[in-house]
Amino acid sequence: MPQSIIKVIHKVKENNPLVHCITNYVTVNDCANILLSLGASPAMCEAQEEVADFVGISGSLYLNIGTLTSEQKESMRIAAKTASHLGTPIVIDPVGAGALKSRHDFILELLENNKISIIKGNLGEIKTLAGFDTCVKGVDSIDNGENGIEACKVLAQRYQTVVAATGKVDVITDGKRVCLIENGHLMLTKVTGAGCMIGALAGATAAVEADYFLATAAAVGIMGIVGEITALGGKNQLLPGTFRIKLFDNIYQIHDEEIKKVGKLKWL
Amino acid sequence: MPQSIIKVIHKVKENNPLVHCITNYVTVNDCANILLSLGASPAMCEAQEEVADFVGISGSLYLNIGTLTSEQKESMRIAAKTASHLGTPIVIDPVGAGALKSRHDFILELLENNKISIIKGNLGEIKTLAGFDTCVKGVDSIDNGENGIEACKVLAQRYQTVVAATGKVDVITDGKRVCLIENGHLMLTKVTGAGCMIGALAGATAAVEADYFLATAAAVGIMGIVGEITALGGKNQLLPGTFRIKLFDNIYQIHDEEIKKVGKLKWL
Amino acid sequence: MPQSIIKVIHKVKENNPLVHCITNYVTVNDCANILLSLGASPAMCEAQEEVADFVGISGSLYLNIGTLTSEQKESMRIAAKTASHLGTPIVIDPVGAGALKSRHDFILELLENNKISIIKGNLGEIKTLAGFDTCVKGVDSIDNGENGIEACKVLAQRYQTVVAATGKVDVITDGKRVCLIENGHLMLTKVTGAGCMIGALAGATAAVEADYFLATAAAVGIMGIVGEITALGGKNQLLPGTFRIKLFDNIYQIHDEEIKKVGKLKWL
Repeated sequence: MPQSIIKVIHKVKENNPLVHCITNYVTVNDCANILLSLGASPAMCEAQEEVADFVGISGSLYLNIGTLTSEQKESMRIAAKTASHLGTPIVIDPVGAGALKSRHDFILELLENNKISIIKGNLGEIKTLAGFDTCVKGVDSIDNGENGIEACKVLAQRYQTVVAATGKVDVITDGKRVCLIENGHLMLTKVTGAGCMIGALAGATAAVEADYFLATAAAVGIMGIVGEITALGGKNQLLPGTFRIKLFDNIYQIHDEEIKKVGKLKWL
Repeated sequence: MPQSIIKVIHKVKENNPLVHCITNYVTVNDCANILLSLGASPAMCEAQEEVADFVGISGSLYLNIGTLTSEQKESMRIAAKTASHLGTPIVIDPVGAGALKSRHDFILELLENNKISIIKGNLGEIKTLAGFDTCVKGVDSIDNGENGIEACKVLAQRYQTVVAATGKVDVITDGKRVCLIENGHLMLTKVTGAGCMIGALAGATAAVEADYFLATAAAVGIMGIVGEITALGGKNQLLPGTFRIKLFDNIYQIHDEEIKKVGKLKWL
Repeated sequence: MPQSIIKVIHKVKENNPLVHCITNYVTVNDCANILLSLGASPAMCEAQEEVADFVGISGSLYLNIGTLTSEQKESMRIAAKTASHLGTPIVIDPVGAGALKSRHDFILELLENNKISIIKGNLGEIKTLAGFDTCVKGVDSIDNGENGIEACKVLAQRYQTVVAATGKVDVITDGKRVCLIENGHLMLTKVTGAGCMIGALAGATAAVEADYFLATAAAVGIMGIVGEITALGGKNQLLPGTFRIKLFDNIYQIHDEEIKKVGKLKWL
């Protein structure tokens, strides 16, 4: 199983896909740097008159609503429509959809009107979108994990998409196949952007791997694996400033052998 | 005196308050990371249709006008009104109010129409708002410190708020009590965002400590103390890239004993 | 030749110029920090009602269209007009002008209606603006360098400006004089923002050096030199997270002797 995500990571490095991101301004720099560290090319472009053209030259489209402005909203509609038409994979990160009705509704609008390849959120966001009860605190999930797999499956089947819910155990499903990932480390919650970076990485993997279920497992898996390696790599790396810097270093230099050794991915 | 700010820091770690930030896009990532490092939960949310709802679930509201857009301006009005109504503490960071008439006027508008708990600026900004002569260079203060305490008191009394003016010596007052803090280090001026991060931290402390004077002293004090510890922690930490990373590390791991040992806070 | 750029760097440190930036939100924090590291004062200010006033107190204006919004577009028009009128140097960074017709057209509009001092782009962007064939991938240039000098000269002469095209060899020209710089390192392409930071630095140097050709050579040169020193400064510095942090450290502490030793600048 780690073998299949290793292949996807290799494809990213070989093909250097252009990932068109419309994302929040809190973690946008982290998203750009993590894409570069893995071997992809980030491009942030959100003006309404530009997005359709830019989707046309990109390998995938990453939409993150962390700090949605009215201009971004309209640009996301245009970009998603163009990408659906062209068959360009679209990854949605529904930041805050668990806490804010307006974001929840906007995500459902995107899901209903477009061909979305991947929805990647925390478990609270995913359960809200699937219509399950859950518990969130602002943009963070404090869901206990119950019915997590079922909620992901329901959402995936409803919109014929791949769903990833991050949490203590990450769940990825295309509605039939399920992958559980037990990597990661608490330090990933002590810095901003870990979730957004996973979404951006899913943009990179979906651009090179047509099996979006596998592409998503690779993106979620690599961040968990590298987060774990980084946190366990030295005492200073259990401090958030240093941890964050080393995360970029370690994504850049991750080896197949490490992925095989550290990866805890289960196929259900 | 360090004892009382230690208590506030503990409360942040125990209660993990959600701090709703509408802030500039230059240092927004730093603000999010410093809040996480201290033990609070940042959430940046600025769409007009979202802010009222989001204030309702937050422990405090932090407004920073460093790169004010028209959309932000309107969102700040709505958010401040809602927070005043709910009794949620509001922290204002009047970035650039010393240099730009329009920002000066906007801050006065916020002060006059809402219940602001804390105004945290550099001395040039605070003196301008208080109607005193001062000297600024862009968003930086080059004020010599004269009449600093008086200006802070005037502003605090006029709007029944806590005022903090950062500088060589930081001044904090609620109009009666005054706290002077002599911590800090020149390196804090060699990286962008130190001031904004103090403001964000005041959002965290005000969410857990109802005595906003004390909450402000804790936020300003902790940044000065940790800045000093960081700069004096090794030769490389006198370089801005490394200094900045270690600042997050050190806020995360600051101990009571260090606060007691390094803290130079005076009650007037 | 390194001698003349050393002089410019000294002038920045002595005069601490205020650089007014209207720039993209991906790398804005990097731009602010690199300006502080070199000894300049950054100020990001883009509200339409503020920019004219702010240009009036700034030493230079840096316009970067990396994530152009409609509000920024109008603000750039106002700011450029004011700066042209006041004789304040304007530096333009035409990010994405090679890939997007609308950005290309906006840059030409700025060039035609204002007195632009410096255009700093990658070779793909510069060749597009000069009307030459080229090859770009999103916001990156994959141009092979052919006719690079000629394209720069054509553009410089057409708009009586200084043109810098970054690439394997950087080209700087005022239409007559040409400077080639062979510094730099592949690691500068593994982090986001190197190009933007050069543009911001050109804002700092143009604010203190009236010979904009020299000012541009200093900005492009210092980044190449420091990038090279950083990448060669230790094994970990060949990893993008650490490299990026050390870049700020090294800009801050760069010595005249290092510039002389490492600098590979050629006057044609």
